[in-house]
Amino acid sequence: MRAVQAHPDLELQVVLGASALLDRYGAVANLVRADGFEPNAEVHMLIEGETPTTMAKSTGLGLLELPTIFGRLAPDFVLTVGDRFETMATALAAAYMNIPLAHTMGGEVSGTIDESIRHAVTKFAHVHFAASEDAGERIVRLGERPEDVHVVGCPRIDLVAEVLAKDGELPEQAEMFREGVGDTFDLSKPFLLVSQHPVTTEYGSGKAQIAETLKAVSEIELPAIVLWPNPDAGSEDIAAGIRRWREKGWAENMHFFKNLPIETYVRLMRHAACLVGNSSSGIREGAYIGTPVVNIGSRQQRRMSGTNVLHAPHDAAAIRQAIDRQLEHGRYPMEAIYGEGNAGEKIAAILSHKTVSTQKLITY
Amino acid sequence: MRAVQAHPDLELQVVLGASALLDRYGAVANLVRADGFEPNAEVHMLIEGETPTTMAKSTGLGLLELPTIFGRLAPDFVLTVGDRFETMATALAAAYMNIPLAHTMGGEVSGTIDESIRHAVTKFAHVHFAASEDAGERIVRLGERPEDVHVVGCPRIDLVAEVLAKDGELPEQAEMFREGVGDTFDLSKPFLLVSQHPVTTEYGSGKAQIAETLKAVSEIELPAIVLWPNPDAGSEDIAAGIRRWREKGWAENMHFFKNLPIETYVRLMRHAACLVGNSSSGIREGAYIGTPVVNIGSRQQRRMSGTNVLHAPHDAAAIRQAIDRQLEHGRYPMEAIYGEGNAGEKIAAILSHKTVSTQKLITY
Amino acid sequence: MRAVQAHPDLELQVVLGASALLDRYGAVANLVRADGFEPNAEVHMLIEGETPTTMAKSTGLGLLELPTIFGRLAPDFVLTVGDRFETMATALAAAYMNIPLAHTMGGEVSGTIDESIRHAVTKFAHVHFAASEDAGERIVRLGERPEDVHVVGCPRIDLVAEVLAKDGELPEQAEMFREGVGDTFDLSKPFLLVSQHPVTTEYGSGKAQIAETLKAVSEIELPAIVLWPNPDAGSEDIAAGIRRWREKGWAENMHFFKNLPIETYVRLMRHAACLVGNSSSGIREGAYIGTPVVNIGSRQQRRMSGTNVLHAPHDAAAIRQAIDRQLEHGRYPMEAIYGEGNAGEKIAAILSHKTVSTQKLITY
Amino acid sequence: MRAVQAHPDLELQVVLGASALLDRYGAVANLVRADGFEPNAEVHMLIEGETPTTMAKSTGLGLLELPTIFGRLAPDFVLTVGDRFETMATALAAAYMNIPLAHTMGGEVSGTIDESIRHAVTKFAHVHFAASEDAGERIVRLGERPEDVHVVGCPRIDLVAEVLAKDGELPEQAEMFREGVGDTFDLSKPFLLVSQHPVTTEYGSGKAQIAETLKAVSEIELPAIVLWPNPDAGSEDIAAGIRRWREKGWAENMHFFKNLPIETYVRLMRHAACLVGNSSSGIREGAYIGTPVVNIGSRQQRRMSGTNVLHAPHDAAAIRQAIDRQLEHGRYPMEAIYGEGNAGEKIAAILSHKTVSTQKLITY
Repeated sequence: MRAVQAHPDLELQVVLGASALLDRYGAVANLVRADGFEPNAEVHMLIEGETPTTMAKSTGLGLLELPTIFGRLAPDFVLTVGDRFETMATALAAAYMNIPLAHTMGGEVSGTIDESIRHAVTKFAHVHFAASEDAGERIVRLGERPEDVHVVGCPRIDLVAEVLAKDGELPEQAEMFREGVGDTFDLSKPFLLVSQHPVTTEYGSGKAQIAETLKAVSEIELPAIVLWPNPDAGSEDIAAGIRRWREKGWAENMHFFKNLPIETYVRLMRHAACLVGNSSSGIREGAYIGTPVVNIGSRQQRRMSGTNVLHAPHDAAAIRQAIDRQLEHGRYPMEAIYGEGNAGEKIAAILSHKTVSTQKLITY
Repeated sequence: MRAVQAHPDLELQVVLGASALLDRYGAVANLVRADGFEPNAEVHMLIEGETPTTMAKSTGLGLLELPTIFGRLAPDFVLTVGDRFETMATALAAAYMNIPLAHTMGGEVSGTIDESIRHAVTKFAHVHFAASEDAGERIVRLGERPEDVHVVGCPRIDLVAEVLAKDGELPEQAEMFREGVGDTFDLSKPFLLVSQHPVTTEYGSGKAQIAETLKAVSEIELPAIVLWPNPDAGSEDIAAGIRRWREKGWAENMHFFKNLPIETYVRLMRHAACLVGNSSSGIREGAYIGTPVVNIGSRQQRRMSGTNVLHAPHDAAAIRQAIDRQLEHGRYPMEAIYGEGNAGEKIAAILSHKTVSTQKLITY
Repeated sequence: MRAVQAHPDLELQVVLGASALLDRYGAVANLVRADGFEPNAEVHMLIEGETPTTMAKSTGLGLLELPTIFGRLAPDFVLTVGDRFETMATALAAAYMNIPLAHTMGGEVSGTIDESIRHAVTKFAHVHFAASEDAGERIVRLGERPEDVHVVGCPRIDLVAEVLAKDGELPEQAEMFREGVGDTFDLSKPFLLVSQHPVTTEYGSGKAQIAETLKAVSEIELPAIVLWPNPDAGSEDIAAGIRRWREKGWAENMHFFKNLPIETYVRLMRHAACLVGNSSSGIREGAYIGTPVVNIGSRQQRRMSGTNVLHAPHDAAAIRQAIDRQLEHGRYPMEAIYGEGNAGEKIAAILSHKTVSTQKLITY
Repeated sequence: MRAVQAHPDLELQVVLGASALLDRYGAVANLVRADGFEPNAEVHMLIEGETPTTMAKSTGLGLLELPTIFGRLAPDFVLTVGDRFETMATALAAAYMNIPLAHTMGGEVSGTIDESIRHAVTKFAHVHFAASEDAGERIVRLGERPEDVHVVGCPRIDLVAEVLAKDGELPEQAEMFREGVGDTFDLSKPFLLVSQHPVTTEYGSGKAQIAETLKAVSEIELPAIVLWPNPDAGSEDIAAGIRRWREKGWAENMHFFKNLPIETYVRLMRHAACLVGNSSSGIREGAYIGTPVVNIGSRQQRRMSGTNVLHAPHDAAAIRQAIDRQLEHGRYPMEAIYGEGNAGEKIAAILSHKTVSTQKLITY
């Protein structure tokens, strides 16, 4: 958003929707405004329930309203990000309306419904901003024209680079612990970072899955910062698992956050002894930051990862063992496999002169 | 539907929506009921306007309601067809809800937004029933597992084969002309069949496009049966072009139908001197029936076709020339490139024992 | 809209939706723009079908999107008109969002679902602009505070007065007949004007009802200008009835219009020998213009009418008899029972200083 | 539901939607099933946010889906309850579809948007089941036909009567405190019951309002059972106020419940020293049970209440003073102003033979 705004030939328009508008998920809208961006439209589209049913319906709701908004804003490009379920609404609205669609983070491989969404969005997108060479090649194999595939790195790495360049120090502890709930502890000593999201294609298993993770983390006997899950189908399951853990009184030395400012999160990754869970940030930002990561289960299945990642199944013993290995190893050297921190600028530069044909055609 | 119903291990459930419920588009629901199928659910989801905006919103509306319906019906498979815009709602609802998705007619190539929709649905589908070898191979190249791709032919050919086997004669003329509007004429003499739909990615050009076609058809001086367009974005344009033609008094020897029973349509294709327009039926059913076809513009662009098809741009002179060549040539021999008329049975047989993994994974 | 725009202390915002955006219903959006108003938002919300089911769903669709729009526009008042089904969406969106709601044409009595809608909107409205003393009193009896009920006349009469003041002559005949379909005739000789809409609470009877009317009109042997029905549940029935009449070749000396510019319509009312049907314009504008009216069936049941109205049931003989009586009588003197042509100014003046309490409370 | 199910001439159909399906609000669907009712349809329609905007949109979502469901179930009557925002969706869907609408608890007076909703639903309803004579008379004054207004009492009183008849004893303490969060205490000693909901028309004030209440309750120094608010616009405000109270460590001797089985709630009301807040249960069930009630603010403004209710503004000192007066007074004698516990039977009996005219007409 900053790079587009800064480019002399581009005008930025921002549409906020879904969890970005909700306190329950950290009120991203407020963070966006605090960063100096005024949204051009806001659309409440998240239907309560966090089941596969409501995930589908919420996408439908987005697809009902976004056309009205796109019709008013009349953008030259709609840019959509990654593979969350609402991304599909953005992609369909733009493509059906003959508005050129740009897509970041396509071509990667993972588990959960995101895997299907990501590749389907690729089939609607007119311009592809791949985060890695590997991903770029996969987009071409999917039948996209090579001249429309631009390997620019991941925009999330831009932020990481910026934060680390400015000040990679630990967040101010007292201030940070004022938010969230749970125990507080000394961040200057080793701690774990836990971030585990539901796998929609394994809906119903989340409570058991998070229990294995929390069990392993508890046994390690390091304090832990634990993040609540994303609003995907099944997040209520994981939340229930976390709440149960807390109610049992087992959450000693754990502190829980709904959402953290990205700056804070990056600094925590910079200093955490190990990141545990299935967040893509472990694979992606982790490689750049050099964070030791234990990645659990199928969610990041086959996503290209650096040497900083160990994989474990949903099994407390295996997870614990992997964490132990990471603690022994310590931090990793930086690997720029998801870009070097200038994706935004590259994207803005390309969009400023890119012309596309509305009609797509598979290359084979 | 017949094959599924007839299979001892399968139970058929039918959900009707969109234009199938509307008189304006021929009340397919009534035809379905007349064929002995009782729909398990009906959902009005077509938002008026036939613009790119309403096409997107109608899909959103479908995606809002289908999850409620799928939740109630709890099917083992959802089967969706082809590449119409509403297909996307069906595909997303099923895939997001972890209901295995079967897809027919994937892997083909065409123009219009259908091209993107078709391949995106492939990325959500768990089982693929390709209509041709060519299409099956393309699905595999898109990263689908070969064991989930079944080349069974096109179910629409099944109906064609059935109709031709039973009675390939001309429809009863007086009865047929009781429907629709316009002049009547003698079907036993040479006549043209015209079926032209909007190209959503060329939205706004429909009126000029159909004018070229009607001009060419008029100049040929054969009577013509003309079908109204599908409810895609831009169909109002084509309809306006047709209405203008009629109001100008230029529609001599033309008869216009909103929709024809499939039997009638097949018999007309069997006897028409030439099918003109951009309907996929020319490519698909046309190859099997041996109908001479003049395919116009980009809509069926690159869709695998038999020898029976000549291509022409949206230009009256070029269209006329192509029709003349087809009239000279006459009927073609049957080419079974889209199957041999037993796709339904094959699909039913495969679905009856197929097991799939909810979690999809690209093969490369 | 003109009066609000002209008022120094008010800013006009316009939201267009439903049939106003559709060619099928005369593309009111184009007329609005031609009048110099630029809509602040447009929302496609009409679901095809024109059944009771789609009428309800279309209202739901409006209620889904209007809150997003109202949130962006942040008006001080939302003004909604009358008793059409979409009015309910506007009223609910505003009232639920604590935006003061102003309502015109409340307090009247009629048939069809409009009767319930009108009074329900009154229960949500914070300011009431009644068109007649009678209606104003009824609003007070419904438990509204007398100080919030303003009898200002009907804004539609403002337009009538303006048109008549400027030029009450017949529309230019050749130009007018260029639109629509059907026979043309000499407007300077006696002609009928027919406008009949569906009665949603008698859904399914529309085809028979319009047949009685057209039969009576045919027997009168005067040429007739016939308007297509509004997009309410059942309008397809009436349209089918009209189409059948035309296809049978019985529509001699009839010309059919989807919609007429309000100026043209008023001038036609000024000169028509009789207005036949169930449009509220007969009761309302008719009283002011002095048009002889035959009002048919329950739709305007009990709506306060002037001496210019004769009532008839859905029976060709009775309708014919009533038309004959009106032809004998000729034009009526003007009765200003629905205002004197300055409602807009009065409304703007009141809105410019009105303050309301968000919390409504019934007065008894 | 029990009375309808038990009646030989009636068939019960149940549609569950909105918060009834959500764990966050106590998963009423599970309670319904536990009571032996199998829902005929379930519809997720609550859009996250609990703002005036999402309250409107959720109603729109209900109005989009209920017509499909009502079309399938084809009921002879739709019965809707009271004045919650979703009630409007049910009422509109039924009335627009010409399905006779029955309404309980109409004709009462309150604050919040409920006041407008309740009377608007009355204007759509064909049969009115008033809970009190007073309410019945108000319905008639609203222009409804006296023969369609039946004063039957409040169905909620039926349940109260049933519970008290069976066993009015305190709930089993250990079991009850296993749910919810917070301190536990001895129910056999005096305790307070707190139930405070948002006032949508005072959106934004909820956090301050609940703070006054909790302050007063704390100062009284009796233990308290506190219920989380309903999912209305503003409930997040009240929830935030409660969470803040807890986080500050001020919630000593308080236990918090999302929802309580109705039996448990009635028994608590039977034994509570005082019910504090703005729940209609204080006015309604409270009169029958004889619970001392301190009703706060405008939400139950002017709702007919018995001698058991003292009113207080949102002011901790005033609330405390009123609670003190109630503690001094103790329990009240039963007042059957909202019925005698047989409303269900009466409703079922009337519905079994009631015929209505689809077309409503105001009586004046």
